[in-house]
Amino acid sequence: MENWNRHQMRVRYQETDQMGVVYHANYLNWFEIGRTEWIRSLGLTYRDIEAKGLYLPVTDAKIHYKKPARYDDKIEVQTRLVSFTNVRMKFAYRLLRENDLLVEGETDHVWVGRNFRPVRLDKIDLSLYTLLKNQLQMEEGG
Amino acid sequence: MENWNRHQMRVRYQETDQMGVVYHANYLNWFEIGRTEWIRSLGLTYRDIEAKGLYLPVTDAKIHYKKPARYDDKIEVQTRLVSFTNVRMKFAYRLLRENDLLVEGETDHVWVGRNFRPVRLDKIDLSLYTLLKNQLQMEEGG
Amino acid sequence: MENWNRHQMRVRYQETDQMGVVYHANYLNWFEIGRTEWIRSLGLTYRDIEAKGLYLPVTDAKIHYKKPARYDDKIEVQTRLVSFTNVRMKFAYRLLRENDLLVEGETDHVWVGRNFRPVRLDKIDLSLYTLLKNQLQMEEGG
Amino acid sequence: MENWNRHQMRVRYQETDQMGVVYHANYLNWFEIGRTEWIRSLGLTYRDIEAKGLYLPVTDAKIHYKKPARYDDKIEVQTRLVSFTNVRMKFAYRLLRENDLLVEGETDHVWVGRNFRPVRLDKIDLSLYTLLKNQLQMEEGG
Repeated sequence: MENWNRHQMRVRYQETDQMGVVYHANYLNWFEIGRTEWIRSLGLTYRDIEAKGLYLPVTDAKIHYKKPARYDDKIEVQTRLVSFTNVRMKFAYRLLRENDLLVEGETDHVWVGRNFRPVRLDKIDLSLYTLLKNQLQMEEGG
Repeated sequence: MENWNRHQMRVRYQETDQMGVVYHANYLNWFEIGRTEWIRSLGLTYRDIEAKGLYLPVTDAKIHYKKPARYDDKIEVQTRLVSFTNVRMKFAYRLLRENDLLVEGETDHVWVGRNFRPVRLDKIDLSLYTLLKNQLQMEEGG
Repeated sequence: MENWNRHQMRVRYQETDQMGVVYHANYLNWFEIGRTEWIRSLGLTYRDIEAKGLYLPVTDAKIHYKKPARYDDKIEVQTRLVSFTNVRMKFAYRLLRENDLLVEGETDHVWVGRNFRPVRLDKIDLSLYTLLKNQLQMEEGG
Repeated sequence: MENWNRHQMRVRYQETDQMGVVYHANYLNWFEIGRTEWIRSLGLTYRDIEAKGLYLPVTDAKIHYKKPARYDDKIEVQTRLVSFTNVRMKFAYRLLRENDLLVEGETDHVWVGRNFRPVRLDKIDLSLYTLLKNQLQMEEGG
């Protein structure tokens, strides 16, 4: 069974637009919050990873909008690692308001150094590589 | 040959993040600016369309990030209508810095009324429907 | 002694800029979150107030920046009602990272109806008026 | 007579909120665009100044909101240098829609180095200091 990291948050007034719902670009921002909390749940922080000179920019994003979120809604961001190589990572996300699935999406990432050139994670930081690899197996319920 | 609407803009300081480049969610915002200008090029405005009670929310978005945009870069947003039915529209986008393709993407939309229920554009506003249909043929270079 | 409502939040990656710190406009957004939580602490929600057709736009804002907040910092937003008439409200804010005061500010507001014209709160919604008036006395520690 | 730098821009959909007007924090962002264009009008760019390791963070901001801006409005941002020392700068801003004054404000800044410690501009970059000083006299109409 799949394991998803769960994080609760409230929709901010600033995140709404004149349609009266959350502006669609903000969901990418919430996916990022999901990743930040997913990493924290492993016992480390993305902030510390960046401090070592490792960055994880987004190379592709896909979002499917089913229902709009609204101001002051309590939202759950669910995050899961989908695939993992020594250069790339793929995450999946679900945004729910209680049991209502509002938005689903995926992001692809590549590990890069300070110069934005791709790096092999297993060569640069083997302990992080191993931690993430084990986590993938766990999330796959393997 | 494909016809793309072209709109120039400058990257804002607020749009950068601590990686020193444009935060990835902002490209969806720029796609929206592309749509706004695409509609303006037809001789009407999205603002006027909304004033009639017609809205065009995003149902799906896809973004492919090739190279980062940076603060104060002069960016060209290119926008094209890809497909069109009496309920749905699909747009494609390209973001360039001079001849450098930075980001590509697509968004899918559905026409809805004030209650967020889908509407058939040909029934609600035939002149807008006809205008958009003709535009599609033109952009396909047909 | 003054009473401040306290709300904890994490700095988001999107809120940083290329200076490596939080972009200065975001603090106004955090002040708004402070107001939202201040109102919730009274047992009602700003969302419900707006649903009645009452809005509380900002007429003036002042911000003093002492130290920058950074990505993933745990921030406390402190909010207090400073003054209150039947038309206007003034709030004060403090943003802290542990015991470090980062930013202080104030916002002034006016009660308006759906048409953006000012309204007298005591005439439109006496129970809300009374609740807020009592709250002011409490926060002044009177 | 005062000299104001003038820059035209369109309000973006993302900048609106569910009140149907521009979210109040965005005006600080527009003030920044005003500063960027003010500096460009002197023949240099803030981007180049930062590339030298000189930063100009905001220490204080004041905003007075008179009328709301709306989606797709054509806005003029007017910017003027108000005061200037070897460590600090103060700018004033006006936002207009045609002849309608919507928002006024001021920001205070301090010159800092990469470590966020204040620096004396005349010691670090005398030519920039002289350029700005001359500009102040011109804007005062002196």
